[in-house]
Amino acid sequence: MSKKYVYLFSEGDASMRNTLGGKGANLAEMTKLGMPVPQGFTISTEACTQYYEDGEKINDEIQAQIMEYITKMEEITGKKFGDTENPLLVSVRSGARASMPGMMDTILNLGLNETVVEVMAKKSGNPRWAYDCYRRFIQMYSDVVMEVGKKYFEELIDKMKDEKGVTQDTELTAEDLKTLAEQFKSEYKDKVGTEFPSDPKDQLMGAVKAVFRSWNNPRAIVYRRMNDIPGSWGTAVNVQMMAFGNLGDTSGTGVAFTRDPATGAKNLYGEYLINAQGEDVVAGVRTPSPISQLEQDMPEVYKQFVDIAKRLEDHYHDMQDMEYTIEDGKLYMLQTRNGKRTAAAALKIAVDLVAEGQLTKEEALLKVEPKQLDSLLHPTFKADALKSAEVLTKGIDASPGAAVGAAYFTADEAVAAAQSGKKVILVRQETSPEDIEGMDAAEGILTARGGKTSHAAVVARGMGKCCVSGCKEIKVNEDAKYFTVGDKKFNEGDVISLDGSTGVVYVGAVETQEADLSGDFETFMGWADEVRTLKVRTNADTPRDAKQAAAFGAEGIGLCRTEHMFFEESRIKAFREMIVSKDVEQREKALAKILPMQQGDFEELYRALEGYPVVIRFLDPPLHEFVPHEDEDIAELAKEMGMSFDELKTKVEDLAEFNPMLGHRGCRLAVTYPEIAKMQTTAVIQAAIKVSKEGTPVTPEIMIPLVGHIEELKYVKKVVTETADKIIADAGVDMKYQVGTMIEIPRAALLADEIAKEAEFFSFGTNDLTQMTFGLSRDDAGKFLDDYYAKKIYESDPFAKLDQEGVGKLVKMAVELGKQTRPDITLGICGEHGGDPSTVEFCHRIGLNYVSCSPFRVPIARLAAAQAKVKELQK
Amino acid sequence: MSKKYVYLFSEGDASMRNTLGGKGANLAEMTKLGMPVPQGFTISTEACTQYYEDGEKINDEIQAQIMEYITKMEEITGKKFGDTENPLLVSVRSGARASMPGMMDTILNLGLNETVVEVMAKKSGNPRWAYDCYRRFIQMYSDVVMEVGKKYFEELIDKMKDEKGVTQDTELTAEDLKTLAEQFKSEYKDKVGTEFPSDPKDQLMGAVKAVFRSWNNPRAIVYRRMNDIPGSWGTAVNVQMMAFGNLGDTSGTGVAFTRDPATGAKNLYGEYLINAQGEDVVAGVRTPSPISQLEQDMPEVYKQFVDIAKRLEDHYHDMQDMEYTIEDGKLYMLQTRNGKRTAAAALKIAVDLVAEGQLTKEEALLKVEPKQLDSLLHPTFKADALKSAEVLTKGIDASPGAAVGAAYFTADEAVAAAQSGKKVILVRQETSPEDIEGMDAAEGILTARGGKTSHAAVVARGMGKCCVSGCKEIKVNEDAKYFTVGDKKFNEGDVISLDGSTGVVYVGAVETQEADLSGDFETFMGWADEVRTLKVRTNADTPRDAKQAAAFGAEGIGLCRTEHMFFEESRIKAFREMIVSKDVEQREKALAKILPMQQGDFEELYRALEGYPVVIRFLDPPLHEFVPHEDEDIAELAKEMGMSFDELKTKVEDLAEFNPMLGHRGCRLAVTYPEIAKMQTTAVIQAAIKVSKEGTPVTPEIMIPLVGHIEELKYVKKVVTETADKIIADAGVDMKYQVGTMIEIPRAALLADEIAKEAEFFSFGTNDLTQMTFGLSRDDAGKFLDDYYAKKIYESDPFAKLDQEGVGKLVKMAVELGKQTRPDITLGICGEHGGDPSTVEFCHRIGLNYVSCSPFRVPIARLAAAQAKVKELQK
Repeated sequence: MSKKYVYLFSEGDASMRNTLGGKGANLAEMTKLGMPVPQGFTISTEACTQYYEDGEKINDEIQAQIMEYITKMEEITGKKFGDTENPLLVSVRSGARASMPGMMDTILNLGLNETVVEVMAKKSGNPRWAYDCYRRFIQMYSDVVMEVGKKYFEELIDKMKDEKGVTQDTELTAEDLKTLAEQFKSEYKDKVGTEFPSDPKDQLMGAVKAVFRSWNNPRAIVYRRMNDIPGSWGTAVNVQMMAFGNLGDTSGTGVAFTRDPATGAKNLYGEYLINAQGEDVVAGVRTPSPISQLEQDMPEVYKQFVDIAKRLEDHYHDMQDMEYTIEDGKLYMLQTRNGKRTAAAALKIAVDLVAEGQLTKEEALLKVEPKQLDSLLHPTFKADALKSAEVLTKGIDASPGAAVGAAYFTADEAVAAAQSGKKVILVRQETSPEDIEGMDAAEGILTARGGKTSHAAVVARGMGKCCVSGCKEIKVNEDAKYFTVGDKKFNEGDVISLDGSTGVVYVGAVETQEADLSGDFETFMGWADEVRTLKVRTNADTPRDAKQAAAFGAEGIGLCRTEHMFFEESRIKAFREMIVSKDVEQREKALAKILPMQQGDFEELYRALEGYPVVIRFLDPPLHEFVPHEDEDIAELAKEMGMSFDELKTKVEDLAEFNPMLGHRGCRLAVTYPEIAKMQTTAVIQAAIKVSKEGTPVTPEIMIPLVGHIEELKYVKKVVTETADKIIADAGVDMKYQVGTMIEIPRAALLADEIAKEAEFFSFGTNDLTQMTFGLSRDDAGKFLDDYYAKKIYESDPFAKLDQEGVGKLVKMAVELGKQTRPDITLGICGEHGGDPSTVEFCHRIGLNYVSCSPFRVPIARLAAAQAKVKELQK
Repeated sequence: MSKKYVYLFSEGDASMRNTLGGKGANLAEMTKLGMPVPQGFTISTEACTQYYEDGEKINDEIQAQIMEYITKMEEITGKKFGDTENPLLVSVRSGARASMPGMMDTILNLGLNETVVEVMAKKSGNPRWAYDCYRRFIQMYSDVVMEVGKKYFEELIDKMKDEKGVTQDTELTAEDLKTLAEQFKSEYKDKVGTEFPSDPKDQLMGAVKAVFRSWNNPRAIVYRRMNDIPGSWGTAVNVQMMAFGNLGDTSGTGVAFTRDPATGAKNLYGEYLINAQGEDVVAGVRTPSPISQLEQDMPEVYKQFVDIAKRLEDHYHDMQDMEYTIEDGKLYMLQTRNGKRTAAAALKIAVDLVAEGQLTKEEALLKVEPKQLDSLLHPTFKADALKSAEVLTKGIDASPGAAVGAAYFTADEAVAAAQSGKKVILVRQETSPEDIEGMDAAEGILTARGGKTSHAAVVARGMGKCCVSGCKEIKVNEDAKYFTVGDKKFNEGDVISLDGSTGVVYVGAVETQEADLSGDFETFMGWADEVRTLKVRTNADTPRDAKQAAAFGAEGIGLCRTEHMFFEESRIKAFREMIVSKDVEQREKALAKILPMQQGDFEELYRALEGYPVVIRFLDPPLHEFVPHEDEDIAELAKEMGMSFDELKTKVEDLAEFNPMLGHRGCRLAVTYPEIAKMQTTAVIQAAIKVSKEGTPVTPEIMIPLVGHIEELKYVKKVVTETADKIIADAGVDMKYQVGTMIEIPRAALLADEIAKEAEFFSFGTNDLTQMTFGLSRDDAGKFLDDYYAKKIYESDPFAKLDQEGVGKLVKMAVELGKQTRPDITLGICGEHGGDPSTVEFCHRIGLNYVSCSPFRVPIARLAAAQAKVKELQK
């Protein structure tokens, strides 16, 4: 038996979303509910997939089914393609499983040709309308199906208007439009090489192909990547009888939401344009009226629409976004779907729907996109203030939030200004580890270079601080302390405002408002916490981060990168001394200076987390990241260290590596320099003893990074336990601690049963694990990843969204092997993926105990974890 | 029931090698054969393993068993520890599963104390002998068990000789030796802090511990790494009644081989020292006589020994290496084992034993160590010539062979001199890719820097060319064209000789002899080829390599690195032009220049392999490896290219990468620049068509490198097939070709079932696969691998011997997944591991079709493959 590829609207329902796409499934559902839907059929997503499998061809089987359904549609509507009495005109629209607004192409008025247009003109008594429809169809078809640019047709219209001495399209007569239609067809023939198709069936087949093709246009690929939509899904095609909103003053078209998509307030919200087709609303040629105008113009229709809207919301238990057309006083519903909304609206609607008894709490949790929450966690500019703000330039939206402050050009000056009580924006060509203190002191960071993974962007996101990076128009002169944009110049102290959520930079101060985590947010996140079983910890390196994360609901620290404690100027010196030491004695002397700083930080972390677990990762990066590389800086450091320039220079050169990612770092440092691990253990344990005595229970978890071989872990663990056990015994206390490892090297995942013999916990370091599993350096991939997206090799950035197929297979394997050896092993993830909702769901599914992410992603992860649990329960 | 850890010699046999160690098993076997073996017992290798598991302690259970066996031994020998009538003295010797000559420590005369020595003195009537034994025992015990340096005791002996006014040890009297023994014991107490143990049982327990401990001394660890012996095996301990060869002129001791270990000639070969203990032979204080002397001295004993030797060789079917002692006219056998031998001897013995009917061909194949063959493939210095040669210095034995030539200091000058007919040695600080032509022209390469994995070493081995690297004593002045060693100076043109198998550099010309691949070599390798099922291909990038490999028996090319064809000066220019192209057109123009060169090379490769398969890997390394990085060189290239310096400099900087190993290389280049893949396909296919027409059948196999995602392979494969199919169709020929991939990225191995949908063959690129699976950069690991060996974290270099546990797990997984999708998929390995015998065996076991290795490793791989098959058959 052959497969069914085409469905009448009356054959489907909302549950068939995967086959019919969202639009098709909802048209079928509305049909089932007896609502006024212009009838038609849906060509399934499977037909689209088949089209690509067949090498971008619609096979005979599918073509035959489409033909069969045209006939069925003609029977239902009583109209016929190309008929001289009652011709059938249709719209052809894409409709994927997930809503991809504006991503795909649409064709209206299909079925028109020279004969049909005459019939329409006569029947309607409105020849101008008929010819306007015709020329629009030719134009749209040429553009969408044959990729003949719109501009050629617009030139012809302009020429016609010149000839006629008019300025508006609406001033052209029926005869003018008829002439234009002829000219358009010539233009088509000229560009395409064949006659414009006059057979509606040929037109339809061309349009269906165009919709299938549009699934892989560049903006669709980008949209899918941004929204985690697999390329394998394909799009359905909806072929629907035209309803005409442009037949006169008893006709019209519009869109409406059952609640306000900006605030979530429960009132019908929408637009309405009299005597118009859908594309007029989109094109913005005329300004639509609010939907209340419809109540005055056509009260009966309005009443019917309000009634339908309520029924739809009740039916779907969610705020609906609807398209409708009124043809000569008769209402037609063209689409309904769950409406897009702002984060604030999403929370309010979810909470309200539960209060109204429409949704359970669990169902409500699925109604908010986790990533949306981010915008609620940062200060924002007041909407009113933005209206009058002067836009200076636009960069990359590297880290969200709004910031206002005086421009400063070096970290030191930013720190000094902040200490004097000023609000500061740090403006740099690009930032480097030395700028950390300045970034910390600033309200926001603006850089001329670098993308979303630049140092500035990554660190700012970690700090939850607003950042606009890669702002190419600004020219920064750090020495002379000014920057310019075109001919505008900003000196040190001049005030600017940054919107890290949009990348826009404003001149002067724009009024901001603080994030509010109470109200709906608090209620909603409370439900999430009730439901979820996956814990959420945070990646925090400083007491400040830890406190921030705790406020966002973090249940412990999943990753404290101890090396980040050393970027402060007062500390880096001792650290560098340690690095350039000539022997163990010298190194131990330097380490002794570092010990109290590190211990102090750990104490504060423990206090901030109030008894929650704290995972402390031992020194990880290659040592050359901490030493200067320019001769000038080397000379300065040499003087400080009491070394000769040559001696230090040789040392620095010795530290250089061909592939630092795969070099002397992680536990390899501890193998070479066990004294470092000893110092870090001492700091961890002494701090824990001290804070425990204050009354806060602490069970530190020491994490050994970059383990690839059980013997590495054994060796370092022995150093740790010997050191720790002695301190504990000497102190005469009963202190527990755990020693575990990051699983970030493929070999460790492959042999996780071995590793678990020594490791009391695993934390998946999916950043490095992804780099190594893909053989792909994150710092270098930027150069060619765009080619990979354009050529459809990668659908998403494997560093943002965990590659569940490959890296995920390794993670799953490690989970299973680890549990074989140690059934009660604690399993977590601490790569940046830990804050990505699809990854969080994966982590829940494979049975991890927790995810750990940067503080500002903690609420996102909490919600994603709850959603994962709800989905599991629903199965 | 408790485990048995101790065995009497009479309880074991040769099959218990894993438990008793080699020495123990053979002592048991000789006992079983009724040969005169001083009796005793063996403490098993499992006891050693247990000792380490218990944290370097001999547990009570094992101690009790040892005590029990002392009693048994006393019953058997009729002697007792510490007895005043008939005291028992024993030797304590280590004995692992694999022979580790000289690696472990031995203690003789254990059981002596103040009482016993008196008894011995009286009983023997030879008090000098008794006290000499005693002072030797104290000295040996202190050194081996308590690590009190020998020098302290030697100082005391010297002092005594001074006092007595004598120069030889032998001139000291019994009384002197007695005094010395007392002094030694004081010295012991002084250094160790306790009295020297007088209870023989305490002495024994200390000695056993010392043997166990010696398993992990640094030289044992190094030896194991060099010889693929796992650290987990442990060593057994043999406790054997002493036989005294130093009781007078009817006593003696010696070693003997049943055949000549240097040549393999069938005649008893050995040494004999009258009135001596074993250590005297080793210490070299007296020069031993040939064993024929024994025939004259004690004809009966000699006859008995000859008889035993013959019986042992017949019994073991192999040349035996024996130790014996004659105590007062009575022969005792102390050890027998299969003797170490040179490669030439190994071949001769194997071939002779088959001819003698002692071995089947299959058994004979196991008698030669595959790695030994290497020394037979290169020219060597004549033994006589070496005797009078003047050693200049010694470096690292980077690539075997012997070379004589005039020193030249730049690649260009080396090439010029070679072209003028001179034999040349290229002497460099270190080599780089620009030196390839010079290396090619030279007889051998000498560098001041770099180890066994330096550029010079790797390339030289690939070329099968002699190389001594890391020769620290030489100071090279390339500009002034001379080098010095100490105060000796060598100018351009001065002749030196290199021995790449030993690292020794000689002054002037030393006479060499060519490798001979006929005779026993040919016979033996013929047997290997008959037996093995695993094919052996070669990694060859040039027609010359291909021809060399074919002569060594390669059955095809498993890896042709196409980029290596571009290092010649005449070619690199076009290649660089391609790299710095601004757009596709310019790049295609440059590629058009490269095409005929590449095609020509492929034609020659096909011809050299005469119908065997040829795998051609497409461009792999990151492009920055081909461009200059110094300003001066950039300026020169810019001029050549007609670019501005700044333009080229920017381009070069843009190409730089943080982690080039994980950067823009492999198939990623083909994704970005499909025109490169098109050109390479064209060259491969056009060459194949041309050579096929000449009558040599060619089925090229195109290998896409660095695939991690099925879509990468799909994309590049499409470029390849579209290009190839068109050329084939245009030519109107029937040409088959395959497209496959390297599996060198963990993700590709994990998803090999997916990859196999597109790949017609897999070739495991275990170099990169090891780097990524371990997260370990080969170029950087050198800095810390020594720490890893010293701390027993790695037992062997994972880049030399495949890590079967981790990387091997991934390879096995990929083999299974790949076969699931494509049961007839061709599977090979082309990493450097392909020439490592243990890896070859692994490849055979997991069902690969072939291994591919550098030309000079082809015979090694052929033998290893045959051995793998024989072992499989034996199971």
